[in-house]
Amino acid sequence: MRILVANANTTEAITARCADAARAAAGAGTEIVPGTPRFGPAVISSGLENAIAAHGLLDLLAGHAGQVDAVVLAVSLDTALQAARQLMPCPVVGMTEAACLTACMLGNRFGLVTFGHTESYRQLIEGYGLSARLSGLVGVDSTPQRALTDPEGALRAVAEGVAELVAGGADSVVLGGAALAGMEPSLRQASPVPLLDGMICGVRMAEALVALAPPKPRHGPMAPVRGRESAGLSPALAALLRGGS
Amino acid sequence: MRILVANANTTEAITARCADAARAAAGAGTEIVPGTPRFGPAVISSGLENAIAAHGLLDLLAGHAGQVDAVVLAVSLDTALQAARQLMPCPVVGMTEAACLTACMLGNRFGLVTFGHTESYRQLIEGYGLSARLSGLVGVDSTPQRALTDPEGALRAVAEGVAELVAGGADSVVLGGAALAGMEPSLRQASPVPLLDGMICGVRMAEALVALAPPKPRHGPMAPVRGRESAGLSPALAALLRGGS
Amino acid sequence: MRILVANANTTEAITARCADAARAAAGAGTEIVPGTPRFGPAVISSGLENAIAAHGLLDLLAGHAGQVDAVVLAVSLDTALQAARQLMPCPVVGMTEAACLTACMLGNRFGLVTFGHTESYRQLIEGYGLSARLSGLVGVDSTPQRALTDPEGALRAVAEGVAELVAGGADSVVLGGAALAGMEPSLRQASPVPLLDGMICGVRMAEALVALAPPKPRHGPMAPVRGRESAGLSPALAALLRGGS
Amino acid sequence: MRILVANANTTEAITARCADAARAAAGAGTEIVPGTPRFGPAVISSGLENAIAAHGLLDLLAGHAGQVDAVVLAVSLDTALQAARQLMPCPVVGMTEAACLTACMLGNRFGLVTFGHTESYRQLIEGYGLSARLSGLVGVDSTPQRALTDPEGALRAVAEGVAELVAGGADSVVLGGAALAGMEPSLRQASPVPLLDGMICGVRMAEALVALAPPKPRHGPMAPVRGRESAGLSPALAALLRGGS
Amino acid sequence: MRILVANANTTEAITARCADAARAAAGAGTEIVPGTPRFGPAVISSGLENAIAAHGLLDLLAGHAGQVDAVVLAVSLDTALQAARQLMPCPVVGMTEAACLTACMLGNRFGLVTFGHTESYRQLIEGYGLSARLSGLVGVDSTPQRALTDPEGALRAVAEGVAELVAGGADSVVLGGAALAGMEPSLRQASPVPLLDGMICGVRMAEALVALAPPKPRHGPMAPVRGRESAGLSPALAALLRGGS
Amino acid sequence: MRILVANANTTEAITARCADAARAAAGAGTEIVPGTPRFGPAVISSGLENAIAAHGLLDLLAGHAGQVDAVVLAVSLDTALQAARQLMPCPVVGMTEAACLTACMLGNRFGLVTFGHTESYRQLIEGYGLSARLSGLVGVDSTPQRALTDPEGALRAVAEGVAELVAGGADSVVLGGAALAGMEPSLRQASPVPLLDGMICGVRMAEALVALAPPKPRHGPMAPVRGRESAGLSPALAALLRGGS
Repeated sequence: MRILVANANTTEAITARCADAARAAAGAGTEIVPGTPRFGPAVISSGLENAIAAHGLLDLLAGHAGQVDAVVLAVSLDTALQAARQLMPCPVVGMTEAACLTACMLGNRFGLVTFGHTESYRQLIEGYGLSARLSGLVGVDSTPQRALTDPEGALRAVAEGVAELVAGGADSVVLGGAALAGMEPSLRQASPVPLLDGMICGVRMAEALVALAPPKPRHGPMAPVRGRESAGLSPALAALLRGGS
Repeated sequence: MRILVANANTTEAITARCADAARAAAGAGTEIVPGTPRFGPAVISSGLENAIAAHGLLDLLAGHAGQVDAVVLAVSLDTALQAARQLMPCPVVGMTEAACLTACMLGNRFGLVTFGHTESYRQLIEGYGLSARLSGLVGVDSTPQRALTDPEGALRAVAEGVAELVAGGADSVVLGGAALAGMEPSLRQASPVPLLDGMICGVRMAEALVALAPPKPRHGPMAPVRGRESAGLSPALAALLRGGS
Repeated sequence: MRILVANANTTEAITARCADAARAAAGAGTEIVPGTPRFGPAVISSGLENAIAAHGLLDLLAGHAGQVDAVVLAVSLDTALQAARQLMPCPVVGMTEAACLTACMLGNRFGLVTFGHTESYRQLIEGYGLSARLSGLVGVDSTPQRALTDPEGALRAVAEGVAELVAGGADSVVLGGAALAGMEPSLRQASPVPLLDGMICGVRMAEALVALAPPKPRHGPMAPVRGRESAGLSPALAALLRGGS
Repeated sequence: MRILVANANTTEAITARCADAARAAAGAGTEIVPGTPRFGPAVISSGLENAIAAHGLLDLLAGHAGQVDAVVLAVSLDTALQAARQLMPCPVVGMTEAACLTACMLGNRFGLVTFGHTESYRQLIEGYGLSARLSGLVGVDSTPQRALTDPEGALRAVAEGVAELVAGGADSVVLGGAALAGMEPSLRQASPVPLLDGMICGVRMAEALVALAPPKPRHGPMAPVRGRESAGLSPALAALLRGGS
Repeated sequence: MRILVANANTTEAITARCADAARAAAGAGTEIVPGTPRFGPAVISSGLENAIAAHGLLDLLAGHAGQVDAVVLAVSLDTALQAARQLMPCPVVGMTEAACLTACMLGNRFGLVTFGHTESYRQLIEGYGLSARLSGLVGVDSTPQRALTDPEGALRAVAEGVAELVAGGADSVVLGGAALAGMEPSLRQASPVPLLDGMICGVRMAEALVALAPPKPRHGPMAPVRGRESAGLSPALAALLRGGS
Repeated sequence: MRILVANANTTEAITARCADAARAAAGAGTEIVPGTPRFGPAVISSGLENAIAAHGLLDLLAGHAGQVDAVVLAVSLDTALQAARQLMPCPVVGMTEAACLTACMLGNRFGLVTFGHTESYRQLIEGYGLSARLSGLVGVDSTPQRALTDPEGALRAVAEGVAELVAGGADSVVLGGAALAGMEPSLRQASPVPLLDGMICGVRMAEALVALAPPKPRHGPMAPVRGRESAGLSPALAALLRGGS
């Protein structure tokens, strides 16, 4: 099966790293197709950029509609997830969503650790209706940049965040954000609970959904639109809004 | 003061109608500036189109940053409201948000009536954290198109929806969606509770916020971004992401 | 228009100070009418006193029914707000309610800072169904009395409370309680987010509601009562319960 | 022990009926002391009247402070319950509160049936934080007046309401409102689940609390006030606000 | 009346201590019948053991069906409470449930203090739908074992936990867990709010329910089962599943 | 990999049918191991039986600990799910849990259709913290018995339930209960949204978890117990409580 690893940032290097992580996680017979939007923010770091990025992401997806078996959103805020589901004829999974739902199958409550602010993750998980399953959020006082120059210090800081979440009742911990991607193997030994990487969970959930082969909804908010006009959108996206194929 | 009435649909006729409603509601000394996005869906009728429309709306707003005193979003799903707040140096109000908050000042619970499906309004109000104030939603079995050909029938159907909501405990009723805009005067006589038109409430709330003159946040999710790179965005929007002026 | 600034404490000095604040905030053409109850607690400082004060406040309002265009409750616990709405033929706004709803239009979540205990504010905001919009409450370790003798220290303490709330995710901060009224100008420079004064927000919201001119509900919990007998109430209040005029 | 059955309506006949019901429910050795406020609404039928009645009720209670071992509020909206708790040195129980908490010990969810509107009960139970235990509310289309002229019809209507609630998942049903008081024996045979009468539950819960002998809180919202001034209140109530004994 | 004090642990000494506490709390004329399961965990200290213990507890109860007037579960996690209600023809009360509901009649919010982890109590209270009434949980850093060797230190630690909860808004505090049973008299003097012992509250609530004499539900989740087959259960339990008597 | 399909009913025929469904859903290389408890209810049809069945299920699991790679609970109420997670060294998935979490990846809200009462499913989903994702529950007026004698009528009834849920906003529908297992292929054509079978989802999720290979928690509610004594349990279960291997 072919899984599109769709970045919502326009930075190719992030896409490449996520695609590598996806390939490492994927089962035999799964082909990973990387995708980067043609326009939008270089690196999403605010709600404003996330709102702008939705268009670029959906434009990217429109170009792959019908050519992939599933999509994993390779962006930690799961940009435009429900809109992507409505747009595409195949399953779409968000990397943070996948990690949170996996966490729900490993215990009662989970925590989330990330670099910097936690507010956008709190809102995301609240939007998923999963607040009752969230034991807490920890924002490690670091940045993706510092993590590159001092990887040992970054690992130590994340491990402390994990320990704090476990003390607060977390049965597992979601690693939030691209900067923590790939840290799981280094942290596993020291962590008293499972750590969940969004790209790994995303690929596994996408494979499970492809195996289930759910039909495309014909009714309701996830059904395809049809006959909708637009202005200034790419031919691929405009065509999907018009539908009718 | 100058208030931008910002449509998120690319259909100029909707912008014009909303601007007219805004002018009728505005106080003396308020100038209404209509605005239509350069690109995006003609008429937002799904979550997918709403997600795409965010970019066009924010692009439109960026072109008016610093030149208006407030913005009223002239789109019933309040497209990209929090992102618009972060982007703009002035207050931004959503038309449905304004109607719901006004309703909160008129009693304990409010209802909402609209044409067609109610699910997107339920999600919007849930996202505003106002579900406890919502007594119910009624989707009248009609369409904006039919309302044009049979205005009497449409009014009757909406009045029945209002009555149903009042029986269910609504102290006021929000008229949801552009198709119900302007109906309030015709329905007022028969309605046992106040009916709230989003454009009218939006303009009044915007005027109140301009009078309060809240400073632009310098910290947190509503603070302006700075130094953010992007690709393929309009010069005005890209400049606001880079900040620094 | 005439706005009644209705205190629920029987201390005239508080009424006068609130009326001054209201006058400073009001638009041109708005006349502020101060009102103090004939009986009740001197200064409401507990739930018990607040429950007793409801009668005095409603008695005060009954004496102004039909003679004012709106009411702003000049008491930080918004004493008997929904009952006042049912009683009066005109809009009624609570000062803390107005500040909270205004805060909802400035960002996602707001904080509240006050002198002393925060529990009654937590309950008030929970009662408004706005808990999901509340990022936190800070009770500054001071009293209205100390604030009078050491105004500099009080300002410093409140500023620290604001900073704590902003660090916790507040996009704006409500100044809770009469003792913080009037502090906004002194704190504005140092605060990274907007600060909301209940009297200022209350007057602006009242003016907006008068402009909207919502009809008095004829049905449901906010509709006037009629034909109700009572004992020992003032003629004005008893007459409104009997209705029929 | 002496239990004050405190009405919040000023209609003596209601007090007498409630006192009779209390006496029938009370254990041996329990003396029922009936009490009616000196002023306030004759029969509380709206939120407005309920807010006014709080003062009269608290005034009534102040006159019995120290002379009774417990209080049962003989009013179905549990008027000013938390304020009464703060005022009195002895336990205070609301009749509807007692029925709801008893229902919590008989199964997972309970229903409530009453004459007329259900909205005030919904709010009351929501205020108690018990919404998750409430399966539903049924407002029988009758009035206390009609119940007097057609008692058979009233019983039939209530029985239908009970059946509807049981079908909706109720493990027990609270009989809401004074007009349903005393109906339990006539309905018991036909009802598939327990029916809970507020006066009976209230007296039993009051007796249990007296046996537990909880000390009066010395701190927090339920602690007595002290040194509070007031104007125009009865000597007994004013004295309790001043405290100091 | 006869009240079965039903332990869910298989340790007889715990049963004996709980029965003693129940006897001390019971009214004149109440006989306390102690009961210990024939099989199961010695001392429940995890969710796993609690799930296993349900069978032993229900087996114990089946042996007393029809021979007692009420049951108090003498286990702080209220093991299998709703199943016990469905099984037995008489009222069944959980000791922690009883303390929490009693707390609801003493103020707005209550806290809970226990030895060790608080997570299982948080889940229990959430399951009762009482989270909105819970001000906080404090897990004292001690164990039942240490409390036996250093009772003074244990009392001091619990008193500090109570003080912390009161500072956080608790109007009363539930003493959670068998290890705190019997501490109330020693802590009462120093505590500014009432302290609630589950066995005492449980017995009082059971007596109140027996006085109310609620009929056994004939419909819904609490109605007895009938005609159900099973394998390997004790004759008493199997007979109650088959019903038909 | 080896997946234990663990029934919580003691009826072998149900186990066999579930194991067949699991085999049909499983990937190549997955071996399905069926398991039936040695004691407990024949068919769980009430909360009481579900509480009793927990012991038998955990006893069954204890006998397979270390010999299987994952467990799928083949019982629609996901009996003792969290306890099973704590007991076993491998991942454990509930069939209804798996269907609900899969539904979360297919849209915003899901419905559930079952034969008979829906209350136990409502509680189950509420316990999972997923109420906000649940659009509604429909209990088809049929029984597993009637479904066997009139399969056409049963399919028609379920299809009507699905249609009702879709009209109410469901983006997918969970087929609740063993009696609906295997119906998905027959209903797929007519259903406008995906239908989710718990055994199929359970097997797919179990496979995904085995691929993720989460380490066993060493801390918190999901960590194994150690040193716990018990009486009358099977050697395998008692040994796991004692731990130490």
